[in-house]
Amino acid sequence: MTDSNLNNLFQNLPDKISEELITILAENSHVRIERIVSTGHANKKGFWYDQEEHEWVIVLKGEAELVFEAGQSIVMQPGDHQLIPAHQKHRVEWTTDKEPTVWLAVYYQAK
Amino acid sequence: MTDSNLNNLFQNLPDKISEELITILAENSHVRIERIVSTGHANKKGFWYDQEEHEWVIVLKGEAELVFEAGQSIVMQPGDHQLIPAHQKHRVEWTTDKEPTVWLAVYYQAK
Repeated sequence: MTDSNLNNLFQNLPDKISEELITILAENSHVRIERIVSTGHANKKGFWYDQEEHEWVIVLKGEAELVFEAGQSIVMQPGDHQLIPAHQKHRVEWTTDKEPTVWLAVYYQAK
Repeated sequence: MTDSNLNNLFQNLPDKISEELITILAENSHVRIERIVSTGHANKKGFWYDQEEHEWVIVLKGEAELVFEAGQSIVMQPGDHQLIPAHQKHRVEWTTDKEPTVWLAVYYQAK
Protein backbone atom coordinates (compact mmCIF):
# COMPACT_ATOMS: atom_id res chain seq x y z
CA MET A 1 0.00 0.00 0.00
CA THR A 2 1.22 3.44 -0.84
CA ASP A 3 0.07 6.32 1.29
CA SER A 4 -0.38 9.00 -1.29
CA ASN A 5 -1.81 11.29 1.36
CA LEU A 6 1.51 11.73 3.09
CA ASN A 7 3.06 14.23 0.72
CA ASN A 8 5.66 15.48 3.16
CA LEU A 9 7.71 13.26 5.41
CA PHE A 10 7.45 15.71 8.31
CA GLN A 11 3.66 15.97 8.14
CA ASN A 12 1.35 14.35 10.70
CA LEU A 13 4.00 13.67 13.33
CA PRO A 14 2.39 12.32 16.49
CA ASP A 15 3.49 13.65 19.88
CA LYS A 16 3.42 10.40 21.76
CA ILE A 17 2.26 7.04 20.50
CA SER A 18 2.19 3.62 22.08
CA GLU A 19 3.71 1.90 19.03
CA GLU A 20 5.91 3.16 16.25
CA LEU A 21 4.01 4.66 13.34
CA ILE A 22 4.93 3.01 10.05
CA THR A 23 3.80 4.40 6.70
CA ILE A 24 4.64 2.65 3.44
CA LEU A 25 5.57 5.29 0.89
CA ALA A 26 6.35 3.06 -2.10
CA GLU A 27 6.54 -0.68 -2.61
CA ASN A 28 6.94 -3.43 -5.18
CA SER A 29 8.60 -6.84 -5.25
CA HIS A 30 12.09 -5.31 -5.20
CA VAL A 31 11.81 -2.59 -2.59
CA ARG A 32 9.73 -1.15 0.23
CA ILE A 33 10.19 2.43 1.38
CA GLU A 34 8.84 3.29 4.81
CA ARG A 35 8.61 6.27 7.07
CA ILE A 36 8.91 5.20 10.69
CA VAL A 37 8.12 7.58 13.54
CA SER A 38 9.37 6.75 17.02
CA THR A 39 8.55 8.70 20.16
CA GLY A 40 10.94 7.29 22.71
CA HIS A 41 10.54 3.71 21.49
CA ALA A 42 13.22 1.10 21.94
CA ASN A 43 13.55 -2.64 21.55
CA LYS A 44 13.86 -4.79 24.61
CA LYS A 45 17.22 -6.10 25.73
CA GLY A 46 17.85 -9.41 24.08
CA PHE A 47 15.61 -8.64 21.11
CA TRP A 48 17.24 -8.58 17.68
CA TYR A 49 15.85 -7.76 14.29
CA ASP A 50 16.99 -10.51 11.89
CA GLN A 51 15.81 -9.49 8.44
CA GLU A 52 15.68 -11.31 5.11
CA GLU A 53 16.19 -8.04 3.25
CA HIS A 54 18.89 -5.43 3.23
CA GLU A 55 17.90 -2.23 4.97
CA TRP A 56 19.29 1.21 4.21
CA VAL A 57 18.12 3.61 6.88
CA ILE A 58 18.52 7.30 7.63
CA VAL A 59 17.42 9.43 10.56
CA LEU A 60 15.91 12.71 9.35
CA LYS A 61 14.70 14.19 12.64
CA GLY A 62 15.32 13.32 16.28
CA GLU A 63 18.01 10.97 17.53
CA ALA A 64 18.43 7.25 18.09
CA GLU A 65 20.98 4.56 18.86
CA LEU A 66 21.35 1.34 16.91
CA VAL A 67 23.13 -1.60 18.50
CA PHE A 68 24.45 -4.60 16.59
CA GLU A 69 24.80 -8.09 17.97
CA ALA A 70 28.47 -8.07 16.97
CA GLY A 71 29.04 -5.33 19.51
CA GLN A 72 29.11 -2.02 17.64
CA SER A 73 26.65 0.74 18.33
CA ILE A 74 25.96 4.00 16.56
CA VAL A 75 24.14 7.12 17.62
CA MET A 76 22.25 8.51 14.65
CA GLN A 77 21.36 12.17 14.22
CA PRO A 78 19.60 13.89 11.32
CA GLY A 79 21.32 12.99 8.06
CA ASP A 80 23.16 9.97 9.46
CA HIS A 81 22.56 6.84 7.42
CA GLN A 82 23.47 3.21 7.74
CA LEU A 83 23.32 0.08 5.62
CA ILE A 84 22.18 -2.96 7.58
CA PRO A 85 22.85 -6.08 5.51
CA ALA A 86 20.31 -8.91 5.62
CA HIS A 87 20.65 -10.98 8.80
CA GLN A 88 22.90 -8.48 10.52
CA LYS A 89 21.16 -8.61 13.86
CA HIS A 90 20.41 -5.24 15.36
CA ARG A 91 18.04 -3.39 17.63
CA VAL A 92 17.05 0.13 18.48
CA GLU A 93 18.60 0.84 21.87
CA TRP A 94 16.75 4.11 22.36
CA THR A 95 15.10 6.99 20.54
CA THR A 96 14.91 10.46 22.03
CA ASP A 97 11.81 11.38 23.99
CA LYS A 98 12.34 15.09 23.31
CA GLU A 99 10.79 15.04 19.85
CA PRO A 100 9.56 12.50 17.31
CA THR A 101 12.33 10.60 15.56
CA VAL A 102 11.69 10.26 11.83
CA TRP A 103 13.41 7.38 10.04
CA LEU A 104 13.34 6.69 6.35
CA ALA A 105 13.99 3.00 5.68
CA VAL A 106 14.55 1.35 2.30
CA TYR A 107 14.23 -2.45 2.47
CA TYR A 108 15.34 -4.30 -0.63
CA GLN A 109 15.95 -7.80 -1.88
CA ALA A 110 19.34 -9.15 -0.85
CA LYS A 111 19.85 -11.47 -3.85
CA MET B 1 30.03 1.85 -5.70
CA THR B 2 29.05 2.74 -2.20
CA ASP B 3 30.54 5.82 -0.66
CA SER B 4 31.06 4.70 2.88
CA ASN B 5 32.82 7.97 3.64
CA LEU B 6 29.65 9.97 3.39
CA ASN B 7 28.19 9.14 6.78
CA ASN B 8 25.84 12.10 6.88
CA LEU B 9 23.72 13.24 3.98
CA PHE B 10 24.33 16.91 4.80
CA GLN B 11 28.12 16.57 4.90
CA ASN B 12 30.39 17.90 2.19
CA LEU B 13 27.86 20.13 0.48
CA PRO B 14 29.50 22.17 -2.25
CA ASP B 15 28.66 25.87 -2.58
CA LYS B 16 28.57 26.05 -6.33
CA ILE B 17 29.38 23.31 -8.77
CA SER B 18 29.23 23.12 -12.53
CA GLU B 19 27.45 19.77 -12.58
CA GLU B 20 25.21 18.05 -10.07
CA LEU B 21 27.09 16.00 -7.48
CA ILE B 22 25.88 12.42 -7.37
CA THR B 23 26.94 9.99 -4.65
CA ILE B 24 25.80 6.38 -4.66
CA LEU B 25 24.96 5.40 -1.09
CA ALA B 26 23.86 1.80 -1.65
CA GLU B 27 23.32 -0.35 -4.70
CA ASN B 28 22.58 -3.85 -5.91
CA SER B 29 20.65 -5.35 -8.83
CA HIS B 30 17.30 -4.29 -7.33
CA VAL B 31 17.93 -0.78 -6.14
CA ARG B 32 20.26 2.20 -6.27
CA ILE B 33 20.15 4.90 -3.63
CA GLU B 34 21.74 8.22 -4.51
CA ARG B 35 22.32 11.58 -2.93
CA ILE B 36 22.12 14.31 -5.54
CA VAL B 37 23.24 17.85 -4.78
CA SER B 38 22.10 20.66 -7.07
CA THR B 39 23.24 24.27 -6.84
CA GLY B 40 20.87 26.08 -9.15
CA HIS B 41 20.91 23.34 -11.76
CA ALA B 42 18.05 22.75 -14.15
CA ASN B 43 17.40 20.70 -17.26
CA LYS B 44 17.06 22.46 -20.56
CA LYS B 45 13.66 23.12 -22.08
CA GLY B 46 12.69 20.19 -24.21
CA PHE B 47 14.84 17.73 -22.24
CA TRP B 48 13.02 14.86 -20.55
CA TYR B 49 14.32 12.11 -18.32
CA ASP B 50 12.85 8.83 -19.58
CA GLN B 51 13.94 6.14 -17.14
CA GLU B 52 13.74 2.36 -17.22
CA GLU B 53 13.42 2.25 -13.45
CA HIS B 54 10.94 3.65 -11.00
CA GLU B 55 12.28 6.57 -9.02
CA TRP B 56 11.13 7.60 -5.57
CA VAL B 57 12.63 10.96 -4.73
CA ILE B 58 12.57 13.35 -1.79
CA VAL B 59 14.00 16.84 -1.31
CA LEU B 60 15.71 17.15 2.07
CA LYS B 61 17.20 20.64 1.80
CA GLY B 62 16.69 23.50 -0.62
CA GLU B 63 13.87 23.76 -3.14
CA ALA B 64 13.18 22.57 -6.67
CA GLU B 65 10.46 22.23 -9.28
CA LEU B 66 9.73 19.07 -11.20
CA VAL B 67 7.79 19.27 -14.46
CA PHE B 68 6.13 16.30 -16.16
CA GLU B 69 5.56 15.95 -19.86
CA ALA B 70 1.87 15.38 -19.21
CA GLY B 71 1.64 18.94 -17.92
CA GLN B 72 1.75 18.81 -14.13
CA SER B 73 4.47 20.49 -12.14
CA ILE B 74 5.34 20.35 -8.46
CA VAL B 75 7.47 22.58 -6.28
CA MET B 76 9.32 20.43 -3.78
CA GLN B 77 10.49 21.64 -0.38
CA PRO B 78 12.23 19.72 2.39
CA GLY B 79 10.30 16.56 3.19
CA ASP B 80 8.26 16.57 -0.04
CA HIS B 81 8.50 13.28 -1.89
CA GLN B 82 7.31 11.98 -5.22
CA LEU B 83 7.11 8.65 -7.00
CA ILE B 84 8.09 8.90 -10.66
CA PRO B 85 7.05 5.69 -12.42
CA ALA B 86 9.35 4.29 -15.11
CA HIS B 87 9.00 6.18 -18.39
CA GLN B 88 7.07 9.03 -16.86
CA LYS B 89 8.95 11.79 -18.61
CA HIS B 90 10.05 14.61 -16.36
CA ARG B 91 12.66 17.26 -15.90
CA VAL B 92 14.00 19.55 -13.21
CA GLU B 93 12.67 23.00 -14.09
CA TRP B 94 14.81 24.80 -11.50
CA THR B 95 16.60 24.36 -8.21
CA THR B 96 17.15 27.24 -5.83
CA ASP B 97 20.42 29.16 -6.09
CA LYS B 98 20.14 30.30 -2.46
CA GLU B 99 21.51 27.09 -0.97
CA PRO B 100 22.40 23.58 -2.10
CA THR B 101 19.40 21.38 -2.83
CA VAL B 102 19.82 17.86 -1.44
CA TRP B 103 17.79 15.11 -3.09
CA LEU B 104 17.61 11.51 -1.99
CA ALA B 105 16.62 9.28 -4.91
CA VAL B 106 15.77 5.57 -4.79
CA TYR B 107 15.79 3.96 -8.23
CA TYR B 108 14.37 0.45 -8.39
CA GLN B 109 13.41 -2.19 -10.88
CA ALA B 110 10.00 -1.62 -12.38
CA LYS B 111 9.14 -5.29 -13.02
